[in-house]
Amino acid sequence: MRNDLKEKVKNFKVEVPSWGFSDSGTRFHVFQIPGAARNAFERIEDAAQVDKYTKAVSAVAIHIPWDRVDNWKDLVRFARDKGLKLGAVNPNLFQDEDYKFGSLTNLDDKKRAKAIDHVLECIDIMRSVESKVLSLWLPDGTDYPGQGDFAKRQSLLIDSLKKIYSAMANDMTLLIEYKFFEPAFYHTDTADWGIAYALSKDLGDRAKVIIDLGHHAQGTNIEYIVSILSSRAKLGGFHFNSRKYADDDLTVGSVNLYELFLIFVELNKFFDLSSDKKPALVIDQSAAMKPKIQATIQSVEALQIAYLKSLLVDTKALETAQLKNDIVLSEEIIKDAFLTDVRPILKQSREEIGLDPDALGAFRKSGYEESMALKRG
Amino acid sequence: MRNDLKEKVKNFKVEVPSWGFSDSGTRFHVFQIPGAARNAFERIEDAAQVDKYTKAVSAVAIHIPWDRVDNWKDLVRFARDKGLKLGAVNPNLFQDEDYKFGSLTNLDDKKRAKAIDHVLECIDIMRSVESKVLSLWLPDGTDYPGQGDFAKRQSLLIDSLKKIYSAMANDMTLLIEYKFFEPAFYHTDTADWGIAYALSKDLGDRAKVIIDLGHHAQGTNIEYIVSILSSRAKLGGFHFNSRKYADDDLTVGSVNLYELFLIFVELNKFFDLSSDKKPALVIDQSAAMKPKIQATIQSVEALQIAYLKSLLVDTKALETAQLKNDIVLSEEIIKDAFLTDVRPILKQSREEIGLDPDALGAFRKSGYEESMALKRG
Amino acid sequence: MRNDLKEKVKNFKVEVPSWGFSDSGTRFHVFQIPGAARNAFERIEDAAQVDKYTKAVSAVAIHIPWDRVDNWKDLVRFARDKGLKLGAVNPNLFQDEDYKFGSLTNLDDKKRAKAIDHVLECIDIMRSVESKVLSLWLPDGTDYPGQGDFAKRQSLLIDSLKKIYSAMANDMTLLIEYKFFEPAFYHTDTADWGIAYALSKDLGDRAKVIIDLGHHAQGTNIEYIVSILSSRAKLGGFHFNSRKYADDDLTVGSVNLYELFLIFVELNKFFDLSSDKKPALVIDQSAAMKPKIQATIQSVEALQIAYLKSLLVDTKALETAQLKNDIVLSEEIIKDAFLTDVRPILKQSREEIGLDPDALGAFRKSGYEESMALKRG
Amino acid sequence: MRNDLKEKVKNFKVEVPSWGFSDSGTRFHVFQIPGAARNAFERIEDAAQVDKYTKAVSAVAIHIPWDRVDNWKDLVRFARDKGLKLGAVNPNLFQDEDYKFGSLTNLDDKKRAKAIDHVLECIDIMRSVESKVLSLWLPDGTDYPGQGDFAKRQSLLIDSLKKIYSAMANDMTLLIEYKFFEPAFYHTDTADWGIAYALSKDLGDRAKVIIDLGHHAQGTNIEYIVSILSSRAKLGGFHFNSRKYADDDLTVGSVNLYELFLIFVELNKFFDLSSDKKPALVIDQSAAMKPKIQATIQSVEALQIAYLKSLLVDTKALETAQLKNDIVLSEEIIKDAFLTDVRPILKQSREEIGLDPDALGAFRKSGYEESMALKRG
Repeated sequence: MRNDLKEKVKNFKVEVPSWGFSDSGTRFHVFQIPGAARNAFERIEDAAQVDKYTKAVSAVAIHIPWDRVDNWKDLVRFARDKGLKLGAVNPNLFQDEDYKFGSLTNLDDKKRAKAIDHVLECIDIMRSVESKVLSLWLPDGTDYPGQGDFAKRQSLLIDSLKKIYSAMANDMTLLIEYKFFEPAFYHTDTADWGIAYALSKDLGDRAKVIIDLGHHAQGTNIEYIVSILSSRAKLGGFHFNSRKYADDDLTVGSVNLYELFLIFVELNKFFDLSSDKKPALVIDQSAAMKPKIQATIQSVEALQIAYLKSLLVDTKALETAQLKNDIVLSEEIIKDAFLTDVRPILKQSREEIGLDPDALGAFRKSGYEESMALKRG
Repeated sequence: MRNDLKEKVKNFKVEVPSWGFSDSGTRFHVFQIPGAARNAFERIEDAAQVDKYTKAVSAVAIHIPWDRVDNWKDLVRFARDKGLKLGAVNPNLFQDEDYKFGSLTNLDDKKRAKAIDHVLECIDIMRSVESKVLSLWLPDGTDYPGQGDFAKRQSLLIDSLKKIYSAMANDMTLLIEYKFFEPAFYHTDTADWGIAYALSKDLGDRAKVIIDLGHHAQGTNIEYIVSILSSRAKLGGFHFNSRKYADDDLTVGSVNLYELFLIFVELNKFFDLSSDKKPALVIDQSAAMKPKIQATIQSVEALQIAYLKSLLVDTKALETAQLKNDIVLSEEIIKDAFLTDVRPILKQSREEIGLDPDALGAFRKSGYEESMALKRG
Repeated sequence: MRNDLKEKVKNFKVEVPSWGFSDSGTRFHVFQIPGAARNAFERIEDAAQVDKYTKAVSAVAIHIPWDRVDNWKDLVRFARDKGLKLGAVNPNLFQDEDYKFGSLTNLDDKKRAKAIDHVLECIDIMRSVESKVLSLWLPDGTDYPGQGDFAKRQSLLIDSLKKIYSAMANDMTLLIEYKFFEPAFYHTDTADWGIAYALSKDLGDRAKVIIDLGHHAQGTNIEYIVSILSSRAKLGGFHFNSRKYADDDLTVGSVNLYELFLIFVELNKFFDLSSDKKPALVIDQSAAMKPKIQATIQSVEALQIAYLKSLLVDTKALETAQLKNDIVLSEEIIKDAFLTDVRPILKQSREEIGLDPDALGAFRKSGYEESMALKRG
Repeated sequence: MRNDLKEKVKNFKVEVPSWGFSDSGTRFHVFQIPGAARNAFERIEDAAQVDKYTKAVSAVAIHIPWDRVDNWKDLVRFARDKGLKLGAVNPNLFQDEDYKFGSLTNLDDKKRAKAIDHVLECIDIMRSVESKVLSLWLPDGTDYPGQGDFAKRQSLLIDSLKKIYSAMANDMTLLIEYKFFEPAFYHTDTADWGIAYALSKDLGDRAKVIIDLGHHAQGTNIEYIVSILSSRAKLGGFHFNSRKYADDDLTVGSVNLYELFLIFVELNKFFDLSSDKKPALVIDQSAAMKPKIQATIQSVEALQIAYLKSLLVDTKALETAQLKNDIVLSEEIIKDAFLTDVRPILKQSREEIGLDPDALGAFRKSGYEESMALKRG
């Protein structure tokens, strides 16, 4: 069994976000992290550090325009030299003054066309960087009752999405992200999984829903949404992070590791996460106060731990207990897996592929941060 | 204009719930209200009082088995004599010991069949009482991780619903109700509008979603859900009540009248609520501490007031302001309607049809409560 | 170190609630658990089963009038024969028709006096059963704006509490419980820790605050409240349970074990929980769907596990990391303790005092439940 | 009666925030508002516009360092020439890199002293600008478990506050602001009114609590906190704004006007808000999407409307109804006041002091915005 587990976790790969390696913050202030990456190349350089110590990075998700470079082939080659690929492409529909009153939902035909064009440009970039996933977060919404006409906006959104969807190649997937609130404070056009699901049905099989763990109302049972979307073949991916209050974007697993584990328990019923046939697993954190590479290593490790724990669930015994409506035993089977310390398995699997068992510690001792602080200032 | 409004509100009718006229409470205690109705006939008698003073009651929603009588025709005739019809039929899937581990999702074929049979019996009752709406709230869910298999339960639910749906006549509508939590505390099988919507799509055009105002996570923008469901032809009805915290089931409009008004503003875009072609508008309150008939009159009046205010919105001016992205003016147009005191219109419309302009005051002075307290004990 | 830990956990005792052994439920239905206890003696009999398999029960908290018996000495003797004491005494201020509009805050002098008298009776019972803790949960509140005068109610509450407080012996402690909402749905007179704290300051040193883990708004950082109250010498005890939504009263640790662990990390800074000098640690669950004794054993074990994990925190290293503002290392020290599987320590400690290492399994196999189902029906 | 009301509202004055007249936004983007104020003088110029059309501005709250000028007397004179005073002084403890790990709670003596010195400088500025209110919002908190030692931080905070408090003149008031979360996402040192209250008790009579309407958990009954703090003589003031989700900082009254009205109903029990003896009433919005002056006029008007409505409550009748526990009548008395359209009273009171009855419309037509857009770019 432990050998099985080790092979599983060795083949469990996640995407890291380029934007997780640069300074971020709140509306109140962006604190500076010494040595934080300043451009796409430096962000990939830092992502490679995460992979160096974990061998768990499948790709680096990029954000346009933040990661725009003159020559995409150069960036792909730079990544490949570091053993990395470029992953999901994320358009930016929230930082242009023209999007003040909406991007894909803007009433102004020109501004809406500009937003669509930006996404189409991202599809071109996908071709250049050999990415198969377009990850679309729509910040559109309104702040006050009356500000917008909900139905008209929804209708414009569907039109915009159809234009985008039809421009995508057959092997590309469109991930529609939903969010409860922020930056809009009255209504958000894609406020919940239900809307994202309905939109993805309007489009077709290559449109799916992406779940960001920080984008729900308090109390939402996210693992149940995972089940619903998976059984309807509409789960497309994750933005992994943690939150205690709103969209806090904390490092993965830092608030309720049990919830993360239960999400993996559901995922295992539908996917082999150690294979290629799986939803996009992307970390999306902006750990404003933590050194960026350390924070990302923490997030990768939290995902590995949750995944390993989830594999320990005795599914046969669980099914039997469920059939008897033995609630206590069913829960104990789940808890037994969660309470088991899987770190020895993780450490051994690292050693078997030539890594330091203590990925975070090894990176901290490597001197990389200090040298980058000097180099990048 | 005011004549228009008076005609509108005269023709605006809502259903009142039979269960709103009997004692109710919390898990801690059910306080006794002197004279509260004890059976279906008394509940209709009390509903007729609401109609007597408001002329705004379209029908009385019934709950099976609470309202079960020996001869349905007797109850229909009794209602008709009071000027009332029977409205939506509500099955009860939460009070039988056999449903401890689920009703329409129960793993046990016999118990699941029992639950389905109960709903089928309700469809028979619909025929007997000439009701066209089956209002289905599914309390099923689990309390602990591991207790149930989400996907298996969802699959059983779809099977059960298909059996129910196929037994319904072509002119009957199935309303699927969703609820965030309670009585289940870990997961609820129909937890949100997205699930109810997807299920209604699985079934067909006569399956729709019913919105209970108390069944959402904190912060949810309900009027936006109204818009989404309406534009997708899946809004089937409402259970009107108020809540500050969870599913508090308070009288309508008692927490945030502005939210109720905004819901009506959306509804007006899709429906003429003074006509017959509209979603089922059902009050669903259990005002544990208030005298029942008074509480229902308050709820009816809150709906009338919110409806009248919503009709005051200058939709032309609003559209123009929205096209200019004039947020302040758009909001002012909405607020202007809300801030207007529509009670004079309501009072005049009552007088014009021979009612006391002060419905609540007239009922309070009528002596009905005192006589019922004596008669019913 | 492990020997230290084993001694610690052997001496870590919690109170179990008598009411946790009888049927409970939601406002929708109370499902029957076969063999559930029907009176105070049976409840103590069942509590003794929890202690038999865990040796972790310090006392049985009782609820008046549910646990009222003809002769208190008989009940004390019965408990003592089972190796148990009676613990915190909990008055009931929510089930009498006279308390419909308030108990300790009732405007009616007679009804308020009746409520006070009930609590004074409980203080007498404390003397009879040698209990030192009066655990006061006040359900008082209002459902609608205008229903009550906040300030007048608060003033009456202070008067009532002063009468109660002055009747207590010098070695008795009054614990004031707060709750965000339910059964009142507009305002609750003791809605949060701040009010309970201010009231306890009004009274004196023997009045303290008790924290029920299910009585907070979503997102509340409970471990921080633990710290604030402890540092101000006003933390009096806990009602341990779990919730995902509202006051769900689930078994301890079933929603977020990390939060429970963090609460113990704070407690360790102020108290030695393996000693007698500590806050009242009382389980307060009403696991409606689970067999009662099993559910309580689960809760006891969750507390033992959280306590053991909390003892593993390397507080020296943590202090050093905190002084360096090394957020990542500080968090890793906390997480390292949490991720360690302490069940081997718990099992060994059980074996050393003659218990089965698998408390829950041993009880399940004992046949007690089956025999009680037969005996009690 | 109406004359009374008109006099009341004529003498009802609120502070407007200087920062409400400059660009603001979310962490995602700060959208530009054409002509928004760029410095302290322009902000006062814009505040004067609000006063010009409402005559309801008592003072302009300032924020240091944003409003720092070379010569404070110049700014005071500039304001006085516009008919305005400077109001509450707000230190900024969140935008300096030295405060990354805390300001008044920083473990580093030098950084903590720097934060204290900044507040002491603000007290000096209070003397220069003849302000009597120091309005202290502490952003300090942590993002991850383990990051900080709660109790040590609290102890440092008390020390820092004592230094600040002792530097204040006898006629100065320290307002302590609390906030549920943000910018910290695990714990906030002054997370709720209870902490702010306890701190204010530690300091003395001139320390009080300020309530920001956006700084609470979902569902919190704010009007009850108003009552509790007022009856304990610790309510010091308000930061008025609206929120649907988190600290959305929307214009006042835009989400739930009824809640605002109920807050005023409570305030009237303790204060004459048309007099000088009242808590500091400060608008604190950052209406990112609305033109700033218009947004502030909307907020002023929302406060005037809520205040006028609250004055309509028939307190005698309410007291009688409450004494009878007539919940329905009590609520109706409250609702009757709320449903009354007070805008005619407001308009007449404006006309009587020479204002345009439509303050917002008059400003919109004045051309001020257009000329500022040209002048300020």
